[in-house]
Amino acid sequence: MSLYTPVLEQHLSYFEKQFPTVFTALLEDNNLIDAMRYACEGGGKRLRPVLLMECCRASGGDPKTAFPLAAALELIHSYSLVHDDMPCMDNSPLRRGKPSVHAAFGETLALLTGDALLNLAFETALSCQNFSADTSLLATRILADCAGVHGMIGGQLIDLESEEKRIDLPTLKRLQERKTAALLVAACKIGATLGGGSAEQIEKAGLFGYYIGLSFQIIDDILDVTATAEALGKPVGSDAQNEKNTYVSLLGIEKARELAEEYTKEAISALSVFGEKGDDLRHLTEALLNRTH
Amino acid sequence: MSLYTPVLEQHLSYFEKQFPTVFTALLEDNNLIDAMRYACEGGGKRLRPVLLMECCRASGGDPKTAFPLAAALELIHSYSLVHDDMPCMDNSPLRRGKPSVHAAFGETLALLTGDALLNLAFETALSCQNFSADTSLLATRILADCAGVHGMIGGQLIDLESEEKRIDLPTLKRLQERKTAALLVAACKIGATLGGGSAEQIEKAGLFGYYIGLSFQIIDDILDVTATAEALGKPVGSDAQNEKNTYVSLLGIEKARELAEEYTKEAISALSVFGEKGDDLRHLTEALLNRTH
Repeated sequence: MSLYTPVLEQHLSYFEKQFPTVFTALLEDNNLIDAMRYACEGGGKRLRPVLLMECCRASGGDPKTAFPLAAALELIHSYSLVHDDMPCMDNSPLRRGKPSVHAAFGETLALLTGDALLNLAFETALSCQNFSADTSLLATRILADCAGVHGMIGGQLIDLESEEKRIDLPTLKRLQERKTAALLVAACKIGATLGGGSAEQIEKAGLFGYYIGLSFQIIDDILDVTATAEALGKPVGSDAQNEKNTYVSLLGIEKARELAEEYTKEAISALSVFGEKGDDLRHLTEALLNRTH
Repeated sequence: MSLYTPVLEQHLSYFEKQFPTVFTALLEDNNLIDAMRYACEGGGKRLRPVLLMECCRASGGDPKTAFPLAAALELIHSYSLVHDDMPCMDNSPLRRGKPSVHAAFGETLALLTGDALLNLAFETALSCQNFSADTSLLATRILADCAGVHGMIGGQLIDLESEEKRIDLPTLKRLQERKTAALLVAACKIGATLGGGSAEQIEKAGLFGYYIGLSFQIIDDILDVTATAEALGKPVGSDAQNEKNTYVSLLGIEKARELAEEYTKEAISALSVFGEKGDDLRHLTEALLNRTH
């Protein structure tokens, strides 16, 4: 079962074609911009921008108009990976089978690269001319809120504080709500906002993002145990080796899988607000549950 | 000669009173938020927020309404200091006579703290309700542009690349235009924008910020050689010790001072666009030239 339907593949293809222009528009070329580009180069699923564009479409908008916000979100995701990999964080020399940014460009430049990507996210979002000022402001505010101390960064903090100790399921959930789910919530809410969705659609889109975020993380945890290194593009078993708290370490594979299925049902139920227009997101949600990498 | 006139002291006092609310509004308390607060606590001149608020007033606006953007700018200044002090950058254990953030909270939390402050800057700017969406969007865009690869971060890159080699005066100027002046340009342009200034006033405010930025840096370089550690609140002679390229190392004290005076004249000349309303900024400009710390 392929992850993306033809419609979603179209978003992906448009995104991949447009994303490099974010860097060429800077009209400069230096080590920093090389490192920024390197940090954002392919390999990933581009799940966040595809979700954002599709939630825009499902809400009645033109997904292409959502590109600047989709790019901004992917820039934030990318900066967080650059800083996460650094020696003082996860000290990870590899990312998607390639040297991580600090391994390739040095630690100093990696620090600046992350900062520059986060800043560029807001430059990109704020320079979007496709919507009214009110809509642009609202969408960028959702982005900022989900990426900050109440969202992704807050999740990173709980993650740090949970290191080398055993946490319980509610704490792990709270961690993943922020660390992983917050940016997926942002993707879906921003998409629905830009597409001109109703207040109910925007809210339900956020709920959808929340549940696929939680389910996504559980499947990640399971794949770290069950997948092959080849399929995954990174060493397997790294969570256990690093004594990470995961859904598998807390619940075991079977119970974790059940929980992912439950969250998947909730996510699909939230999609009813889009009627038939939610079909591609429904397919994606099921495919994410059944993915092998 | 005191730095701030009574009117500017009012801005400072309002800012210092309001700034802590940015953190209490987060409605959480944890190590990260403690570190963020610590990074932003007093000691500094708060030059950027005072300039922003005064340019708002000089353009006919109410300086208090500019507070959210002034706070956002100070958050960006603060994050840059946190990351600059880190071991992989300047490796500075002290900041304003106190342990720097990584010295007090550890390197991992310092990295997250900088990220969180940069993100919070945009959360704060975007949640401002005092202006039309168009004005808020424009002001926040100026902030993002001046802080990014074409502004402050770009300056940090040139600084890194200039380490351990001799650079020429045009390169040093290019470095400081971005590293130091860009945020002062932002302060003045954002202030004038929020105050409802004319296009000419906004442009001249930016020019004013540019010239005081350059002059400010030259005086900093001179004070590093001539001031006492007590007056400066940090060790003197650190630039020479670190073999830094400064206006003093390139030009000598006297020629550097002449250049600072020239830039000061240019800054004051740009202020004519505000008529009598520019008097407090004029005083500040002269006081910055003659400061002893």
